[in-house]
Amino acid sequence: MAKPSIPQGTRDFSAEVVRKRNFIFSTIKKVFEVYGFEPLETPAIENLETLIGKYGEEGDKLMYKILNNGISNPKNMEKSKAGFEKVLEGKSSSDLTERALKYDLTIPFARYVAMNHGRLTFPYRRFQIQPVWRGDSPQKGRYREFTQCDADVVGSYSLINEVELASIYHDVFSKLGIKGYEIRINSRKILTALAEVCGEPGKVVEITTAIDKLDKIGIDKVKEELKTKDLTDDQVNLIESYLTMNSEANAGNQAKITALKDFFNDSDEGKKGIKELEFVTANIAADVNIIIDVTLARGLNYYTGIIFEAKAPATVKIGSIGGGGRYDDLTGLFGVPNIPGVGISFGVDRIYDVMTEMNLFPDEVGSGTQVLFFNMGETESRFAFDIMQQLRHSGVACEMYHEPVKINKQFSYAEKKNITYAAIIGSQEIEQKYCIVKNLKTSMQEVVIFDKLAEYFKNI
Amino acid sequence: MAKPSIPQGTRDFSAEVVRKRNFIFSTIKKVFEVYGFEPLETPAIENLETLIGKYGEEGDKLMYKILNNGISNPKNMEKSKAGFEKVLEGKSSSDLTERALKYDLTIPFARYVAMNHGRLTFPYRRFQIQPVWRGDSPQKGRYREFTQCDADVVGSYSLINEVELASIYHDVFSKLGIKGYEIRINSRKILTALAEVCGEPGKVVEITTAIDKLDKIGIDKVKEELKTKDLTDDQVNLIESYLTMNSEANAGNQAKITALKDFFNDSDEGKKGIKELEFVTANIAADVNIIIDVTLARGLNYYTGIIFEAKAPATVKIGSIGGGGRYDDLTGLFGVPNIPGVGISFGVDRIYDVMTEMNLFPDEVGSGTQVLFFNMGETESRFAFDIMQQLRHSGVACEMYHEPVKINKQFSYAEKKNITYAAIIGSQEIEQKYCIVKNLKTSMQEVVIFDKLAEYFKNI
Repeated sequence: MAKPSIPQGTRDFSAEVVRKRNFIFSTIKKVFEVYGFEPLETPAIENLETLIGKYGEEGDKLMYKILNNGISNPKNMEKSKAGFEKVLEGKSSSDLTERALKYDLTIPFARYVAMNHGRLTFPYRRFQIQPVWRGDSPQKGRYREFTQCDADVVGSYSLINEVELASIYHDVFSKLGIKGYEIRINSRKILTALAEVCGEPGKVVEITTAIDKLDKIGIDKVKEELKTKDLTDDQVNLIESYLTMNSEANAGNQAKITALKDFFNDSDEGKKGIKELEFVTANIAADVNIIIDVTLARGLNYYTGIIFEAKAPATVKIGSIGGGGRYDDLTGLFGVPNIPGVGISFGVDRIYDVMTEMNLFPDEVGSGTQVLFFNMGETESRFAFDIMQQLRHSGVACEMYHEPVKINKQFSYAEKKNITYAAIIGSQEIEQKYCIVKNLKTSMQEVVIFDKLAEYFKNI
Repeated sequence: MAKPSIPQGTRDFSAEVVRKRNFIFSTIKKVFEVYGFEPLETPAIENLETLIGKYGEEGDKLMYKILNNGISNPKNMEKSKAGFEKVLEGKSSSDLTERALKYDLTIPFARYVAMNHGRLTFPYRRFQIQPVWRGDSPQKGRYREFTQCDADVVGSYSLINEVELASIYHDVFSKLGIKGYEIRINSRKILTALAEVCGEPGKVVEITTAIDKLDKIGIDKVKEELKTKDLTDDQVNLIESYLTMNSEANAGNQAKITALKDFFNDSDEGKKGIKELEFVTANIAADVNIIIDVTLARGLNYYTGIIFEAKAPATVKIGSIGGGGRYDDLTGLFGVPNIPGVGISFGVDRIYDVMTEMNLFPDEVGSGTQVLFFNMGETESRFAFDIMQQLRHSGVACEMYHEPVKINKQFSYAEKKNITYAAIIGSQEIEQKYCIVKNLKTSMQEVVIFDKLAEYFKNI
């Protein structure tokens, strides 16, 4: 038999990892809830029709499609064959696959809002923490099954939402202990204005896409790319002068706003974008580390206003740990137009890596069983079992060793499982109504009477 | 455009449902943890090879297989075609599908233990709460995507585990408020002994399968089915007399054990099974409603010792809400023999229905935002925002209405969202440093100074 394995790009999460991940999830969830966001869960599988064509050609390729059941059934066979032919041509066919795995949380959310918009109360604030699947080539930090973690407000144009979402980033990172994070913001309107100022309003996508690569490829390559999009030297220089506002204006957000006002003196769209940045930076608490970054572009084309990127502390070299922005029309794709929204997302796998590298997980997160009751024989263990049950009912995580074996073996089990306390109840202890409690980390031991045992562990 | 929809047998979970489901999950999880079980999460997608053939022919049919990506790629095309031909013949082929969605939690758990048995500390106690997928015909209470909730101990033959698992059922149902539940137990050894006593040791599967249907089809149909398996009238009558022990022995577990001892006087296997039942019933706390049920069979063939079934209170007519049992060889399928185990499972969707019907969800479970800050204008809302942030940081879930619209509209939003408190801060309140807090359910209103606001809501 072949050695069992799991698919490339997927992971088993052992107890320690589950606990650490849950620490991140529950921290984020609590902050979402305190900001009035409601949970939503959508199925892992969606109709292929809902997903196909929504993520570009690449997305259609990387999406996991589910083979219809019963394709070998004689009554389906002709359809199955025709469907397979279509798929071989690179098309999709519901005769072969009707369903696919979720590719992100945004499109299923849009589908949900479109299906339920009559029943929902707007503005609708929802969060969603669920796995998604992409058949990408796996590499460090990139998986084929991974969890996304989104919060969106739909049905509101108010910039208060942007202020709140930036505050959520701050609150989550602070609670997780991630000091030195940065929340970078820009407005897509400013990038639109930049294209207009260049005299190339039709090339906003090309310009944005090139600027988006600045971090990765550097200014010279960005300029090269812009030239391949038929921008003149003057236009490229203008874009370069726009991009340098970031470094010139080290003095802070106010200085950048002043520089932007100069640059977009004649542009209505630019002024609108600057107003958005002004509102957010003016209304956010002083301890939120928000930084205007005119070079921030975000690849996705559907953004129309403020865009966000959360960055890990520079020391850990992990880069982006979250992103988001405002979009004008979430559900238009599903026949329900004019529902605007704004949302952010946390990159949980990267946050996990940041916390590991910065050693930020609290010790308690890793702990399971607190007390191992030793098994001292049939009668003794029967008695100890009842004592243990009382402890469990008061919330202390306990186990009894399953067999009355040599005490060394039981110690070794406790050690391997990183259990802190051993509780020993032999015949003498039963008679005298107490228990020996040994701290296996310090080797200190104490005698605790049965009635005080729950209290003893509660007070530790 | 077609109206958007979700695949048959799948569900969107709105905030209220997510909260209620999480109430069940977290109750179960807390009990598992207090019993020393550790979390495990395995991927949603497994290699098809891991799953295929493990659930019988029906399982292979109902399993969701994932179409390989890139089958239309010229370099894969010949393989894809050959794979498709095999699938058309009703076989499986990794040239068309290498991966499938999880069908249950047990096989992936076995695969995990087999892959990691060198690193795990045995007995290994794990719990797992994750979705699984089956292409069954959807009907009331049966879904194509649903969550399973399992706890297993592997690497131990001790019956203490059985006592603990039955206690877990009790603790969970008690915490959820499900009074009148029943935990029915039997031993597969007794059913094996029954076949032997009949003189048909080779027909244990047929006899068990027929007995398993007793609840659904009644004794007469069970007898008919047994006769179709070539059992004589005498044998069938013997089985009937075995089955009637349940009702004769209304006096309780002790009376049933006495009757069983009589019946299996000459059977070693029977005596072993009776010892198991005696151990579990003798060692369990008196408040656990455990009932020996000699008619309990559980369809799955891999059980070898104690089997469990948890039943909802008879009044709600929902039947089984959990089940499990002992198996001898979990990981033999994956080349690692001789790892015995015992486990139980909770039927979460049915528990949800039981709790809905019995009206057991606490009111708090449904609540999201506690306080809506009214938006009284640009200056006022800016001020109120800072007050709200303080409240959020002390853990109170708040929202601010996103626009400074008529007060009636803001009240109506609070009502629709079932928010209990409105906090109103106008220009006068800013000056006087207090806030008007209105309870929207009682229409009572109070004046609270800003500094006391967090305390006010904490004390409610």
